[in-house]
Amino acid sequence: MTEGKLILLRHGQSVWNESNQFTGWVDVDLTEKGVAEAKNAGALLKEKNVLPEVVYTSLLRRAINTANLSLDAADRHWIPVIRDWRLNERHYGKLQGLNKAEIREQFGEEQFMEWRRSYGTPPPEIDPDNEYSQSGDPRYANLNEVPLTECLKDVVERFVPYFTEEILPRAQKGETVMIAAHGNSLRALVKYLDNISDEEIAGLNIPTGMPLVYEIAADGSVKNPGGTYLDPEAAAAGAAAVANQGK
Amino acid sequence: MTEGKLILLRHGQSVWNESNQFTGWVDVDLTEKGVAEAKNAGALLKEKNVLPEVVYTSLLRRAINTANLSLDAADRHWIPVIRDWRLNERHYGKLQGLNKAEIREQFGEEQFMEWRRSYGTPPPEIDPDNEYSQSGDPRYANLNEVPLTECLKDVVERFVPYFTEEILPRAQKGETVMIAAHGNSLRALVKYLDNISDEEIAGLNIPTGMPLVYEIAADGSVKNPGGTYLDPEAAAAGAAAVANQGK
Repeated sequence: MTEGKLILLRHGQSVWNESNQFTGWVDVDLTEKGVAEAKNAGALLKEKNVLPEVVYTSLLRRAINTANLSLDAADRHWIPVIRDWRLNERHYGKLQGLNKAEIREQFGEEQFMEWRRSYGTPPPEIDPDNEYSQSGDPRYANLNEVPLTECLKDVVERFVPYFTEEILPRAQKGETVMIAAHGNSLRALVKYLDNISDEEIAGLNIPTGMPLVYEIAADGSVKNPGGTYLDPEAAAAGAAAVANQGK
Repeated sequence: MTEGKLILLRHGQSVWNESNQFTGWVDVDLTEKGVAEAKNAGALLKEKNVLPEVVYTSLLRRAINTANLSLDAADRHWIPVIRDWRLNERHYGKLQGLNKAEIREQFGEEQFMEWRRSYGTPPPEIDPDNEYSQSGDPRYANLNEVPLTECLKDVVERFVPYFTEEILPRAQKGETVMIAAHGNSLRALVKYLDNISDEEIAGLNIPTGMPLVYEIAADGSVKNPGGTYLDPEAAAAGAAAVANQGK
């Protein structure tokens, strides 16, 4: 039997990554650089012969297009696709749309980092009238309520149960599963996979467009703790760039 | 209840549409024109407020990318996606990869049109060693046997049962279902929907990148025989161009 694998792929650079705005559930597109990152990720999958058999995506354009472009580049555009809101980025509440550097200057380093990295404290809720609110968005019509803000703990609580019920069993059976998602939804997942504490997860940064592979045993345990980047040098440089955002 | 709809969308111009080669199951990409056609189809869906709730595609890149690009342009990139080989283009047998004008010249108009448009006579089978054969392609690993050639009747026999079991019931329940597929798989479907005879189907041509909408009643019957193109003038010009291929 083939060994089960999870391929975690954070979307390529988005328009608001570039302009340094808090994005959350706002549905911004990839930049040209982000498109190139997605294609490069797919070329790497093909080169290393790590070929997804099924892909999960969030409901957000930047992750969906990253999946589409990378799979096309890997000649795996034809695999089954499952989209679910539980893979979405953390909802950034009232901060959605605001500039990270301005928020840091206005509220100070401590508050800024608490909003970005505290495990249990969400930013203030977004007003449903805010142009960056998702109230009334048809893609969330089946949710009981659309979040108004989320902390990382909220993301863990919505994504990890979905992961263990829907995604992990495929890897346990030997499938190679790609998860095209977001900085914070993938941090929530890595926290679970590597059993990282609420405090230590603050220091973990996931670079855009770099396939991170976890090998999964039949009992669901991780065989390579921390996972393996297909291009480790590029991934280390990318993670450092994420850590320095807003500076 | 909303009225059920089927949106039939033939992929935009492919590299081999442009170079006038028989394509079949060969997995060629869209041209720049084809990309623009796909985006335009999506803009039209948005403008006319015909918004897909689920999309079915073949396993071929030109239909998959047409679906991705058009749905992105229509702000419906987040809907569920189902891919199935039964939506694939007709397998063109030994003709795959060959130039249409050369085949027409070499074998004459009558034989050429029989291969293109006869209902029951397939072209000669492709050799499994032919560079354009699909033997061993991993996306067809679950099929009992990969076709070596097909006539339109074969496409009807593989696609229509799948359509009536998997796709039509959604439209009967009021969903708007998009089908991103190919010239001949959509001809097979239209033959069924409009109850067109084996002889008359030869004269039906479907233009690339033009959304064709069928309204479906709760009993599965078509409420607008022949369907409705969202842009009828452009569609008529496109169909004439298809009819003249190889000339």
